[in-house]
Amino acid sequence: MAFHFADRIKRAPASFLSELFAASNNPSIISFAGGLPSSALIDTEGIAQATRQVMEEDAHIALQYTTTDGYLPLREYIADRYRTRLGLPATAAEIQIVNGSQQCLDLFAKIFLNTGDHVGMERPGYLGAIEAFSLYEPIIDTVPLDDDGPDLAVFERFVKTRNAKFFYGIPNSQNPSGRTYSLEKRRAVADILRTSDTLFYEDDAFGELFFDAKPRMPVTKYLPDQSVISGSFSKIIAPGMRIGWIYAPEDILTPFNVVKQAADLHSNFFCQKILHRYLTTHDLDDHIRHITRVYGRKCRLMCDLLDDQLPQLSHTTPEGGMFLMAILPPGISSRRVFDEGVMQKVAVLPGMPFYVDGGGEETIRLNFSNPEDEMIKTGIERLANVIKGLIRQ
Amino acid sequence: MAFHFADRIKRAPASFLSELFAASNNPSIISFAGGLPSSALIDTEGIAQATRQVMEEDAHIALQYTTTDGYLPLREYIADRYRTRLGLPATAAEIQIVNGSQQCLDLFAKIFLNTGDHVGMERPGYLGAIEAFSLYEPIIDTVPLDDDGPDLAVFERFVKTRNAKFFYGIPNSQNPSGRTYSLEKRRAVADILRTSDTLFYEDDAFGELFFDAKPRMPVTKYLPDQSVISGSFSKIIAPGMRIGWIYAPEDILTPFNVVKQAADLHSNFFCQKILHRYLTTHDLDDHIRHITRVYGRKCRLMCDLLDDQLPQLSHTTPEGGMFLMAILPPGISSRRVFDEGVMQKVAVLPGMPFYVDGGGEETIRLNFSNPEDEMIKTGIERLANVIKGLIRQ
Repeated sequence: MAFHFADRIKRAPASFLSELFAASNNPSIISFAGGLPSSALIDTEGIAQATRQVMEEDAHIALQYTTTDGYLPLREYIADRYRTRLGLPATAAEIQIVNGSQQCLDLFAKIFLNTGDHVGMERPGYLGAIEAFSLYEPIIDTVPLDDDGPDLAVFERFVKTRNAKFFYGIPNSQNPSGRTYSLEKRRAVADILRTSDTLFYEDDAFGELFFDAKPRMPVTKYLPDQSVISGSFSKIIAPGMRIGWIYAPEDILTPFNVVKQAADLHSNFFCQKILHRYLTTHDLDDHIRHITRVYGRKCRLMCDLLDDQLPQLSHTTPEGGMFLMAILPPGISSRRVFDEGVMQKVAVLPGMPFYVDGGGEETIRLNFSNPEDEMIKTGIERLANVIKGLIRQ
Repeated sequence: MAFHFADRIKRAPASFLSELFAASNNPSIISFAGGLPSSALIDTEGIAQATRQVMEEDAHIALQYTTTDGYLPLREYIADRYRTRLGLPATAAEIQIVNGSQQCLDLFAKIFLNTGDHVGMERPGYLGAIEAFSLYEPIIDTVPLDDDGPDLAVFERFVKTRNAKFFYGIPNSQNPSGRTYSLEKRRAVADILRTSDTLFYEDDAFGELFFDAKPRMPVTKYLPDQSVISGSFSKIIAPGMRIGWIYAPEDILTPFNVVKQAADLHSNFFCQKILHRYLTTHDLDDHIRHITRVYGRKCRLMCDLLDDQLPQLSHTTPEGGMFLMAILPPGISSRRVFDEGVMQKVAVLPGMPFYVDGGGEETIRLNFSNPEDEMIKTGIERLANVIKGLIRQ
């Protein structure tokens, strides 16, 4: 029979991510297209140890239903880390556990967006956010993201004219661009928003991944009570557990909790317990220093290879995170680089899906966190061949 | 600052479940109010063994990101069980993994419901479904649930006049009533729906929990291509893992997959692997026979105690599942039984939240799966005291 789906489905943008996973699962293709942290840097021994301890001491509780807000000691750990690491006055009551920070995007949109409401985001902007927000049928306005943060003139015009519910941004090592807001821009974004009712949704998936292992002050620091932060253990511990959180004023968490409960009752309790055990029996800062050293080396390797082999191409130079963005030489489209790349066994991510209002054909996103050094070397060689071949055509 | 939430939040019914968890977490209160399976029946040793094996053989993969649809061998296991146990022609391509069957409610509503669309459900109906559906602002029509299934005259009128997107039902040991559709009513429901475009959403959380351990034919059997089934490991293995599934035509799974990806990328991969390992190295049927023997005994114990100590009260007599529903003596309200019960250290669940269009003040839901036998004895004694006290007033 024919199925009569809701309008939001008919309007949803077709997703690229499944195609990507397919390409990145083909072992003969070197993939820079995915968004995976390094599998080799997941501390499987430490997690196995924490898992054994939870199973020995607490299995009947860890495997049972629990409350929607999440495991209190884990929420206390997260709040404590905000206090000590960033000086934010966080309490466990302001932390709600979710299934990775992707679920924040869905639930936050669900509590704020009516059809036709305005929201803002960076251009280019995170694809997962575009997909989550679009299902609530808002009008998405974009603000160009420069090397040091949003274009402030456009941002101010957006804030003053759109009466938007929120602006969504990734100030630290943004996905897809790898760009980081300067301190000046962080303050300016807060100052401009303060004159409005528009919230700042600060996606901080990568804030712990600066190669110098030093924290940057979140925009929330300068805009308390008018912003939320989403965070995730996916990039610093393990994505397969699907544990992230939102740090938000309690008045926001009240309805957030209602929609979280309706969405799936609560997040995986077993993994919340394992994570908490792991975090309280291992040195997280030491683990993160190890990750950032490796990612910093991989990022420099990729940048150097690109500069050396493809001087016709420009690229961002990330201070952290897992991605950089490259601008292709004039006349070369990223779709052709993707198609030709797959033929030559190297996958890149065309930038178009990150441009919700069109454009981006000249951009590609490259992931440097997942492939090993040798893969980066061979993959960039292949990519250089692909692009040089297209230039010659 | 004041937050400007979406209209769906302002209209959402206040949730009872959090209050309940609070009451059921107070160890001095004997709770019949919750919806927990027996903690003692969770096979923690078997799960610990499966977990060790996954960590030893497969940790780097199990802790990494994966695809949205779920772990293929687990989906094959589920499809295979539908084929062998119920004779349904299921394939892995028709199975999508979700975070417990609660997430099906959210995502299914999300792909089908526009504001103002009609959906149908049983009266009384499952609270978690009411909460999930309400956020998409449909008009919810109800059909009285008799001892052997829906009132067919009302059901037929609903189908013929409402042009509803779907009817949501729990034919096996319904939550909250404990009622099970007769075979005749299953066929009749399918026959009536076949004349329409209205889908049947068959929530089968309890289909494996019949005390005689025998399967009942799902409505889907008589209505292929116009129905979906949601299932869950929460009641037969462990709720804390949050792993359930939807079995649906591929044309429905395509948009379902899009909204699942936007909601949280994928379900916990670590637990999908552990579950699959557990299921393929243990005898599930044997485990389920053990659970159903214990639940059958507990249910009979509770029914006998009620008949003996509270002949003024009538109740359903479940063939399976985890709940029964009681009708209070005339003039006694369930809210007063709840309030007075908490004072006397016994918690019951007032039925009103299950009546989306009002009513139900004379009903309470009692859970018999979680409390141990001694707790059932003491708890029903306390409940009898509470109700007799209220009758005397």
